[in-house]
Amino acid sequence: MSSNVPIGVAGATAPTPQNTPLTQAPIALGLSRPTVPDISEDNEAETGGDDEGGPSLAGLEEHMAEMVQGKLAGLLGKSSGYIESLPVEIKLNVEALKGVQVKQNELHNQYKRECLELEKKYLELQKPLYERRNAIINGKAAPTSDEIESGEKASIKDDEDYTPLPKDVTPASEGIPEFWLTALRNHVGLSDLITDRDAAALKYLIDVRLEYLKEDSPEGKPGFKIRFVFSKNEFFENEVLEKAYLYQEEVGYSGDFVYDRALGTDIKWKEDKDLTKEFEIKKQRNKNTNRTRLVRKARPTDSFFNFFSPPVPPTEEGIEAGDYDDDEIADLEEKLEVDYQIGEDLKEKIIPRAVDYFTGKALEYEVMDDDDDDDDDDDDDDDDGQFDDVSDHGSSPF
Amino acid sequence: MSSNVPIGVAGATAPTPQNTPLTQAPIALGLSRPTVPDISEDNEAETGGDDEGGPSLAGLEEHMAEMVQGKLAGLLGKSSGYIESLPVEIKLNVEALKGVQVKQNELHNQYKRECLELEKKYLELQKPLYERRNAIINGKAAPTSDEIESGEKASIKDDEDYTPLPKDVTPASEGIPEFWLTALRNHVGLSDLITDRDAAALKYLIDVRLEYLKEDSPEGKPGFKIRFVFSKNEFFENEVLEKAYLYQEEVGYSGDFVYDRALGTDIKWKEDKDLTKEFEIKKQRNKNTNRTRLVRKARPTDSFFNFFSPPVPPTEEGIEAGDYDDDEIADLEEKLEVDYQIGEDLKEKIIPRAVDYFTGKALEYEVMDDDDDDDDDDDDDDDDGQFDDVSDHGSSPF
Repeated sequence: MSSNVPIGVAGATAPTPQNTPLTQAPIALGLSRPTVPDISEDNEAETGGDDEGGPSLAGLEEHMAEMVQGKLAGLLGKSSGYIESLPVEIKLNVEALKGVQVKQNELHNQYKRECLELEKKYLELQKPLYERRNAIINGKAAPTSDEIESGEKASIKDDEDYTPLPKDVTPASEGIPEFWLTALRNHVGLSDLITDRDAAALKYLIDVRLEYLKEDSPEGKPGFKIRFVFSKNEFFENEVLEKAYLYQEEVGYSGDFVYDRALGTDIKWKEDKDLTKEFEIKKQRNKNTNRTRLVRKARPTDSFFNFFSPPVPPTEEGIEAGDYDDDEIADLEEKLEVDYQIGEDLKEKIIPRAVDYFTGKALEYEVMDDDDDDDDDDDDDDDDGQFDDVSDHGSSPF
Repeated sequence: MSSNVPIGVAGATAPTPQNTPLTQAPIALGLSRPTVPDISEDNEAETGGDDEGGPSLAGLEEHMAEMVQGKLAGLLGKSSGYIESLPVEIKLNVEALKGVQVKQNELHNQYKRECLELEKKYLELQKPLYERRNAIINGKAAPTSDEIESGEKASIKDDEDYTPLPKDVTPASEGIPEFWLTALRNHVGLSDLITDRDAAALKYLIDVRLEYLKEDSPEGKPGFKIRFVFSKNEFFENEVLEKAYLYQEEVGYSGDFVYDRALGTDIKWKEDKDLTKEFEIKKQRNKNTNRTRLVRKARPTDSFFNFFSPPVPPTEEGIEAGDYDDDEIADLEEKLEVDYQIGEDLKEKIIPRAVDYFTGKALEYEVMDDDDDDDDDDDDDDDDGQFDDVSDHGSSPF
């Protein structure tokens, strides 16, 4: 009947008399998050901000815009003076409405809790299917002809030119090699995180699972956890790497859970296998003695595995004490947003529809932003010791 | 513990080794919508595109970007050739996974239907509170002291400087005049739509209600309906103006309902009271006879009440036949997005928390976009008849 072209979210200014511009609600509405200054992930690491000569301009603008808009919102709500000018007799009615609203909110929060229970119930119902999927991927079970037939029907529905496979062939006993590595690399955000070095380790990724946190869990807060299950490998000792996303105990203004912070597994890297570090050999000259020496330094580097060392929100005290400047806060907000969005996408899209990420089908349904192309190199970090750098450093990946 | 600064949604490019840029997911993800060409709301109306010398650039860019990104997405999913290169034995396993995915999707769609049932259940549970609210707003019932006390507790929680009202005053018997007009005007999108002329009519708005459409409703599709209830007034005969949002029968790729189209009540305007029209007196000269004449013309004008004449999605046949150019489609997409977003906000925010919109509190929680400031005047519409305009037209509002 009608085509399904996704509608954009950009500022909509339809210039006809029938229509007036409208503010778009961003996806993050209802989700408020703690702001965070930069932290160094390594003893020898510089702060993220210094690394690149300051935070990204886009983020800063966003931050400023939000502050201005916050002010506007306040004005818009209050500038008319209409409420203040009401006689006390009517103000009493308004207070009564607020009393009714308290009851409405309680009911709404109860609704949100029931929604979460429903989510959990269906995760349980999905589990046998997730296990079946896992068995096929890892060659622990042979697919049935019914499964193959049903899959081919879906393939034909998606693409009428699909050519059915020969039926006299025995499905491979090893399952589907590199299934999860391929699936993750077909997610735009994750493909940006996964380096070629990471890929060597992610070949050992055999399952990605979702779990809800119990109130009495070690984390002690509601939320969810993504479990990355690995087979034995030469990179790290852990069999499972986890990333937990915690919500605050109290729901937010709109009844939604409010993101609190994320926690990641401490990866036990085997010797010289830490993919989140890069080693560089520097020649340094002592200003006083004029002698040079060679120094081997570990420094943090791009890696998917940094996902397990999520940015840490700052304490409110730290912000009040002025420990962080606005740029640091904006930068950290961006990191938190990215970290959170990947978690949400794993939970809501990649885990539920992994085969569509493996084949690339899921991408046909993604609408993408593309202002993310300025990852310039950063070889100009300064050392604040007494040595001046006298040569370019050659970095060795292992 | 931690502050609640909302996180922005702009392209996040956190330039540190720990972090790589990530695509943000727009709110509209999962909601696909039909595209629509421009329609003229009046026999004498020009097309919206011509009105302003073409559609907004922002919308066009958005549209183009989406097309390019769609292409990229396709490439990203398929360029590696990895899937195609797999031996048939492994491809059989992939087809089997698709078969498992079919079952997963069925379960997910069942989950989405249960979510909708839960939503409906809580709307029923909220109804007595909505009725109580309505009674207080319209002076049909006096507030109880418990309600006022509970409301004042909430006020103190929000603002410790709140001064409690005197308790020896009787609440006003007329309720809260202009409650809904004030509440709607405190929503950023709606305040843009409501003209001063509209305000005179919206003073008669006494309730705004949400209803879910039944499968066997006249509309014949799932969806919801916003009911605007009016007291007797000099503007129109209707007591209720409705706006229905219909979903497509089939859920979309991600299991969400897909927006189909909106329907609005045909407003029975009293004579010369149509707020969606403006009358202008034009002097026109006949090119052949060189004589002039006066013509009174109705033309569409900005009004909140255009909300009840929603944009109409085009037929797929029309698009295929090339009836609309890309600009028209982009323009109509924007109109549909705006129209849909207002409906969503009424359903999810304004109706559930009307008192917060009345007081302006809700605005403190809104994050706003602000690229919507180019509503320039359009006095340069052309008449395609044989008469040339020879004077400025004076528009008379009634």
